[in-house]
Amino acid sequence: MSTANYGDIIEVTAPADFHVHLRDGELSRLVTPHVHKGGFYLAYVMPNLVPPITTTEMAIEYKKRLKEYSGSSKVEFLMTLYLSDALHPNDVKNWKAAGIVGVKSYPRGVTTNSDEGIESYDKYDELFKAMEVHGIVLNLHGEIPSDHSKNICVLNAEERFLPVLANLANKYPKLRIVLEHATTAAAINAVKVCGDNVACTITAHHLSLTVDDWAGQSFHFCKPVAKFPDDRRALQEAIKSGNKKFFLGSDSAPHPSLSKSTATSTSGCAAGVYTSPILLPLVAHLLDSFGAIDRLADFTSNFGRGFYQIPADSDAPKVFVEKVQGVSVQAEYSSEGKTVVPFWANRQIEWQIVNIKE
Amino acid sequence: MSTANYGDIIEVTAPADFHVHLRDGELSRLVTPHVHKGGFYLAYVMPNLVPPITTTEMAIEYKKRLKEYSGSSKVEFLMTLYLSDALHPNDVKNWKAAGIVGVKSYPRGVTTNSDEGIESYDKYDELFKAMEVHGIVLNLHGEIPSDHSKNICVLNAEERFLPVLANLANKYPKLRIVLEHATTAAAINAVKVCGDNVACTITAHHLSLTVDDWAGQSFHFCKPVAKFPDDRRALQEAIKSGNKKFFLGSDSAPHPSLSKSTATSTSGCAAGVYTSPILLPLVAHLLDSFGAIDRLADFTSNFGRGFYQIPADSDAPKVFVEKVQGVSVQAEYSSEGKTVVPFWANRQIEWQIVNIKE
Repeated sequence: MSTANYGDIIEVTAPADFHVHLRDGELSRLVTPHVHKGGFYLAYVMPNLVPPITTTEMAIEYKKRLKEYSGSSKVEFLMTLYLSDALHPNDVKNWKAAGIVGVKSYPRGVTTNSDEGIESYDKYDELFKAMEVHGIVLNLHGEIPSDHSKNICVLNAEERFLPVLANLANKYPKLRIVLEHATTAAAINAVKVCGDNVACTITAHHLSLTVDDWAGQSFHFCKPVAKFPDDRRALQEAIKSGNKKFFLGSDSAPHPSLSKSTATSTSGCAAGVYTSPILLPLVAHLLDSFGAIDRLADFTSNFGRGFYQIPADSDAPKVFVEKVQGVSVQAEYSSEGKTVVPFWANRQIEWQIVNIKE
Repeated sequence: MSTANYGDIIEVTAPADFHVHLRDGELSRLVTPHVHKGGFYLAYVMPNLVPPITTTEMAIEYKKRLKEYSGSSKVEFLMTLYLSDALHPNDVKNWKAAGIVGVKSYPRGVTTNSDEGIESYDKYDELFKAMEVHGIVLNLHGEIPSDHSKNICVLNAEERFLPVLANLANKYPKLRIVLEHATTAAAINAVKVCGDNVACTITAHHLSLTVDDWAGQSFHFCKPVAKFPDDRRALQEAIKSGNKKFFLGSDSAPHPSLSKSTATSTSGCAAGVYTSPILLPLVAHLLDSFGAIDRLADFTSNFGRGFYQIPADSDAPKVFVEKVQGVSVQAEYSSEGKTVVPFWANRQIEWQIVNIKE
């Protein structure tokens, strides 16, 4: 089956989102339950809070809050630390026991709350070697900061980063590395030619958007920005091909609706697209749209779990989605004065969750 | 002189903006006086009203309104018609006497109010031949509509149009053609290799912006979108080189501030950057910033007037701008419930108009 018919049902075991922003405070209370609402049982949680998560204690406390907000005891939260000088190689051996699975690297200044990001990886040599030994994953926001003197801007920031990825993969052959939220054909190709220690997440929204969609439309603006139509096609083909290196990380990134909908002449809108509450149906819809619906379970669970060595248990929850004539995406989600607007608000999705066996 | 010192004064005779949107109704009352406020004595007026200007009668009436709103009897308004089936070759001979200088072509659906734009030029063969005979200029919004199956999007829409420009220039060697608001190195090169019948306008804002500036910042969003840093550099170099084919057309495009500042999940912001009220100081500031201040009079008056064969009279107004420590750009301009926000609102410009001899 490459394109589904109405009434077709697909089963996914314990869907896993290997890149999600669950924020903190009231916004976190609003959005954390949406992981489960969107059909997911594993959330790989980004550490870019203010201040960022840089210690095991902070990660443990954050995870406790997320479990409290989750609304489902079945959702697993995998924690990450924010790559910075605050991380010490000697501590790495304690991370797994504390629920920390990876370390996230943000290049300086190119995404939300990444001012503490880094530019050179040389100084993390000891850290990365310890991560290799203890099986901690390195998650890369793969963009070079803009530098107009070198013609670097948001459009080629990812492509210019790819040599750095290749170098890291060669230098640390046992370090598992994930290039996050790939947006270009160049990134897909770079990941393919790396060894098996390198994988790549793809978001739902980058399967849908091109630059035409965010030009003048702040709700579709995110980092990395969506690129050319041929880049989008390369992401789709990577999934369609069934290459196990490519799996879902939604990069679902909620912002208060006002910070998305309004700009002043001196301050633009927040970067991020919010997909958590509709994630599994949305991904099914998109894969179906380009003839890859048969890859749904691999893309949303099996491949990511395989790379992270976190297979679903035999008694893991199973989620069933059905192709239907169309379900409207809710216009917004609100709680305690916070409002977030999901991707494709008021639009129709042709898939919905029809059954869950927990 | 390539970079100016504080206190330096430059004289420009009858500055001429060869591409400006003056709108209609209350908005037109607000913005039309800004041509003179910005230091300009010639406004080449775009015809994309609703409905578009397609007859000599409409152009005459529109010009009458603009003169009424202008606030200065010294400002000259040159009128254009909107290229469409409504234009008849037999009428072309009457256009000059009616104040019509050019015909503006909009590709379908790529800019404000361009739904009546066209895709193929073949059907205008007779019209273009009549324009050649009677000295009417063809103004091209040089973008191909997006077509994702061909990888065409806002980023390469201009470059993909350039073969069309070359074909028109070859087919109608006596037709004066202006490629409007060039944004790419490719466009600069294409114009250079065309014959002397082809010229090119460059806006002020495209000398300042790159894609980084409009990503998530709706006030910097316009069509064509600003491109890569190297493209911006090519525009700057074209001016710096003193090539007479390249002159100012501001494409100053006012929109009510709300339509710039706000988006909903289903509707983005309006495309356009508003520079009229600060135009001559802004252009001086920008040219000075990249070492081309000695080209100010050529870029903002002489070269455009040369191409259009509209030299300034010996008694034409002279405008003097001085380099100063910094003048704040007004936050907004309002009248009768309409508010527009200028480019660089609240920012500092280092040039100001210090004297006018009318």
